[in-house]
Amino acid sequence: MAQTYRAKIFVTLRPSVLDPAGVAVESGLKELGYETVEGVRIGKYIDLQLQAEGEQEAQEQLDQMCDRLLANPVIENYRFDLIPE
Amino acid sequence: MAQTYRAKIFVTLRPSVLDPAGVAVESGLKELGYETVEGVRIGKYIDLQLQAEGEQEAQEQLDQMCDRLLANPVIENYRFDLIPE
Repeated sequence: MAQTYRAKIFVTLRPSVLDPAGVAVESGLKELGYETVEGVRIGKYIDLQLQAEGEQEAQEQLDQMCDRLLANPVIENYRFDLIPE
Repeated sequence: MAQTYRAKIFVTLRPSVLDPAGVAVESGLKELGYETVEGVRIGKYIDLQLQAEGEQEAQEQLDQMCDRLLANPVIENYRFDLIPE
């Protein structure tokens, strides 16, 4: 029987890829007085529910979703946490 | 002496706020064949380093940064994990 899982997916730019939004936010934080802030990187946090026959199937589906739609594998990495509901 | 901390910040839309990007991604996933996907919500994941005199000061600075720049408190919630480096 299918089980419902909740997935928390983190999509981040690969370390070698420039992050202009992160640079802009870092500059904004420094201007507000937070001068010790460094290395700001901005990624996506995606929350969803799915159904699968088990944890392995859920992980396989999520890997496919990330590779096909949620992340751009050329410039982004992803990881996810899976929580049975 | 100042200690370096790494912060992982999660900014999410409040549950009562519509998320058109999440709706679009959910529809895209269903069209790709992942028909059990529900409740897609898209937020931001921000990674940064900062220096502070202790964990409490780091938390206070991060709360301020989120309230003033990183999140929009009217429509978004935030939480963060703090890791000493």
